[in-house]
Amino acid sequence: MQRPQILVTNDDGITAPGVRNLVEFMNEIGDVTVVAPNSPQSGKGHAITINSTLTFEEIQLDGPQKDYSLSGTPVDCVKFALDKILTRRPDIVVSGINHGANSSINVIYSGTMSAAVEAGVEGLQAIGFSLLDFSWDADFSQAKGFIQEIVRKTLENPMPKGVVLNVNIPKLEKDRIKGIKVCRQAVAKWEENFDERINPHGKKYYWLTGYFNNMDSGADADENALADGYISVVPVKFDLTAHEHMISLGRILNTEASGS
Amino acid sequence: MQRPQILVTNDDGITAPGVRNLVEFMNEIGDVTVVAPNSPQSGKGHAITINSTLTFEEIQLDGPQKDYSLSGTPVDCVKFALDKILTRRPDIVVSGINHGANSSINVIYSGTMSAAVEAGVEGLQAIGFSLLDFSWDADFSQAKGFIQEIVRKTLENPMPKGVVLNVNIPKLEKDRIKGIKVCRQAVAKWEENFDERINPHGKKYYWLTGYFNNMDSGADADENALADGYISVVPVKFDLTAHEHMISLGRILNTEASGS
Repeated sequence: MQRPQILVTNDDGITAPGVRNLVEFMNEIGDVTVVAPNSPQSGKGHAITINSTLTFEEIQLDGPQKDYSLSGTPVDCVKFALDKILTRRPDIVVSGINHGANSSINVIYSGTMSAAVEAGVEGLQAIGFSLLDFSWDADFSQAKGFIQEIVRKTLENPMPKGVVLNVNIPKLEKDRIKGIKVCRQAVAKWEENFDERINPHGKKYYWLTGYFNNMDSGADADENALADGYISVVPVKFDLTAHEHMISLGRILNTEASGS
Repeated sequence: MQRPQILVTNDDGITAPGVRNLVEFMNEIGDVTVVAPNSPQSGKGHAITINSTLTFEEIQLDGPQKDYSLSGTPVDCVKFALDKILTRRPDIVVSGINHGANSSINVIYSGTMSAAVEAGVEGLQAIGFSLLDFSWDADFSQAKGFIQEIVRKTLENPMPKGVVLNVNIPKLEKDRIKGIKVCRQAVAKWEENFDERINPHGKKYYWLTGYFNNMDSGADADENALADGYISVVPVKFDLTAHEHMISLGRILNTEASGS
């Protein structure tokens, strides 16, 4: 079999340790091209750059891969890579490794996962990886074998079109990780609390803070699998339609103009 | 019945004609508070501001409503309104009226819809409204009766928790609109094409452009209902789990560490 073509991106920026580790892991599996933001893009969700312009640079970093840094969001990186950089469609797009969790509701805020979802919109296989450790010197090496296993299995068993994977890895030593578990997105939310401060000119300003509230007790919820020591894998789709409510909603809202 | 409390936001910025029209329509239904971005935020998706700070101002605009402009994204506006501005939870959150379509796949890029989805995460009733007309002097008055009808019906018949509405309105005169139709998100995507230019210093830069590709022929798809002259209403949820693929994916990926 030909070596797979792998596109790597992330949301912490092209020099973040998380993406450099992912590149190293992917170099052992296929031919890697990195197109990643030139600055941190955490919390950018599915943002795209439409009211300003983009620039990119090829940069030289250790390893056999090619590295391109783009002045945009993670979703921009996927779009730009496909249209302007790659000469053929990649076999898989991997995003991350994010510094911090993207489990449960975080999937909608996450630049890491939005890049994977965008690849799914393009009909590509895609996986977002996140480690439950925010620190810049987090130990990603523990996750190497698991990440390579998930990528290899996905290449061998492609997911249905439009489905991508949200993989979260607990902050545990390798031999304390219990295994890999396919899960659903936990029912959880952030309870916001804006931290008010006064700037040197006397004006109030705010930092978004808050705490995470897991309202789910199911063993099949990603949040709980992680707490239990598993790597969680949630199949994610971008059809947001609440199909199960279409009929009841139609009874309330559907109207037809009279033939006037 | 007490007058409903209505929170209004948008992604085109607090002075955009679309939101000013929506405020006018909502003032006839309830007590309105506007918390909207102080600058255009189109295409910001579900972005939140975590690496910088936020400021807000109360501003004076015509009408009985209160207006607050925030230096953040549409999702920030919803979070900030709930934590810092409103004294009680609103009965409904309405976002828009967006200048331009947010049908089908646009729901994931849209700041307008992300604000509504964030309100859904908070357990609130929420609706995003978009008019299929990008121009700043679009005629929003045609939509008034339909928008008020949808808001009133939603207040009377609350949606299940976590479901919000994505309402798109065709660019048609009022009496040519055929009615309101509950739909699913059409299968469609943008075919990107980055427009390359050279700046005065000789460096390449790029504008994101492209065309919209509707790959769906179903009469129940929002894109097609709009083309057919209907106002489309898609119930939208934020559980992105592809539940239907969990079992097959589990067979491929689930592992348990040996009891070592």
